[in-house]
Amino acid sequence: MKFSDKLETAVRKKNSCLILGLDPIMEKMPEKFSKDPNGILDFLKGVIEETEDMICGVKIQMAYFEVFGSKGVAAVEDLLKFCRDKDLITISDGKRGDIGSTSTAYAEAFLGKDVPMESDALTVNPFLGTDGVKPFVEFCEKNGRGIFVLVRTSNPSAVEFQGGENEISVKVANMVEDLGLTTLSDKNFFSSVGAVVGATLDPKFLEFWREEMPHTWMLCPGVGAQGGNVEDVLKLRKNGLGVLIPVSRSVLYAEDPKAEMQTLFEAQKV
Amino acid sequence: MKFSDKLETAVRKKNSCLILGLDPIMEKMPEKFSKDPNGILDFLKGVIEETEDMICGVKIQMAYFEVFGSKGVAAVEDLLKFCRDKDLITISDGKRGDIGSTSTAYAEAFLGKDVPMESDALTVNPFLGTDGVKPFVEFCEKNGRGIFVLVRTSNPSAVEFQGGENEISVKVANMVEDLGLTTLSDKNFFSSVGAVVGATLDPKFLEFWREEMPHTWMLCPGVGAQGGNVEDVLKLRKNGLGVLIPVSRSVLYAEDPKAEMQTLFEAQKV
Repeated sequence: MKFSDKLETAVRKKNSCLILGLDPIMEKMPEKFSKDPNGILDFLKGVIEETEDMICGVKIQMAYFEVFGSKGVAAVEDLLKFCRDKDLITISDGKRGDIGSTSTAYAEAFLGKDVPMESDALTVNPFLGTDGVKPFVEFCEKNGRGIFVLVRTSNPSAVEFQGGENEISVKVANMVEDLGLTTLSDKNFFSSVGAVVGATLDPKFLEFWREEMPHTWMLCPGVGAQGGNVEDVLKLRKNGLGVLIPVSRSVLYAEDPKAEMQTLFEAQKV
Repeated sequence: MKFSDKLETAVRKKNSCLILGLDPIMEKMPEKFSKDPNGILDFLKGVIEETEDMICGVKIQMAYFEVFGSKGVAAVEDLLKFCRDKDLITISDGKRGDIGSTSTAYAEAFLGKDVPMESDALTVNPFLGTDGVKPFVEFCEKNGRGIFVLVRTSNPSAVEFQGGENEISVKVANMVEDLGLTTLSDKNFFSSVGAVVGATLDPKFLEFWREEMPHTWMLCPGVGAQGGNVEDVLKLRKNGLGVLIPVSRSVLYAEDPKAEMQTLFEAQKV
């Protein structure tokens, strides 16, 4: 099954384009959890169970697990299995990218079959250019996986090397749209090559990216804590599809994660 | 001790700017080694022992280890300790990079103190901009670590998003030079914020990067198998310092790795 079809199934079933972002920040975790991979697993699994009816998937922020080395990565493996068993879409947020042959190894690590960190999708950094991204696309084609390529982030320094409307990010967007054509779903006309576009960008700018990438699932971080407006992002949907909204810290560290997720869930229901 | 001083000590002691790149590619490994993390460790430790007198450090290509998930990362930890015990400079080649708070977690994972993947240095992808790179620089300052930021790679697609002489890579180079100033060695005037610049670039172009980044250690992959000319790269040294040449596949998979390394070693002796 193509990744885009798998995503559609998950989004329709839950009536949700929300992705729970798993960013286990030690200092913010409730005190009752130990500050180690076991404590992280207990904490995150609890939030997943509280919110699973309102989300289509999860996004695992690799950095917070790598702090614990191999034990942290073992926790990632555990978490991926836990989420797969719940039919949640699993996105590893590792922002990997390298020259071709090394990108192939990263692709195998996350998008291979029966590998320990087997995920439905991976976030990819495009700085090395098309030949560094293509190996990931090949895994999308052969294994029904997906990627989300960084196109335009909304952190303060993003403009420096991603440039404005007519610069680097536009070239990346064109590459993403082109590379996606081999993995287009016959059913929903979205591809398996997605894009990361910051939700806090100007609404007109968000629309611009949708026009540049009409067949692309857009993963839009920044709603909630970072100030992105959920209404603006939802306008990028077509027929209820094509947009994924990750929510991480604003839910994970809320006094009542379930209630916090519920508000977002109601706001985005089709 | 500042990373640049630590590097100088290693380079002078061994009279070598060579870094052994550890890229364990299953299909290329000699048949007697098992195709798993244990086999990889046996294979790589053997090559390290054969060549350690001719190298100042090692560079661990994370991708090839991540294929094995937590077991692969445990092998990285083992390898880092093995190399530290031999006083070899350890560079984790993970090309990490994210928004600020997440970059801090990656920095802690690789450049923290007493963490499982504790390394002397990490390769960093600058696509998110200065605020995504600064957290790594803070770890250089407080822990005496180093980073190598991708400035200009020499894979075929590099030009797409890195641009030519007057484009993105130049902006990245300026950032690298500026960010390095807080970590400048009083002794050798190089900083802890290094740059990755492909060795296969045109010699005039290599010189251009040295002029743009006069205080920067340049890690120049591509000598040997990929066609980079060692003489051109060595011209970028100042007083025998400021350049590191990683050699990976051309040595690891040579019939006689020691002899292959010896040739390079003789070519670069000061």
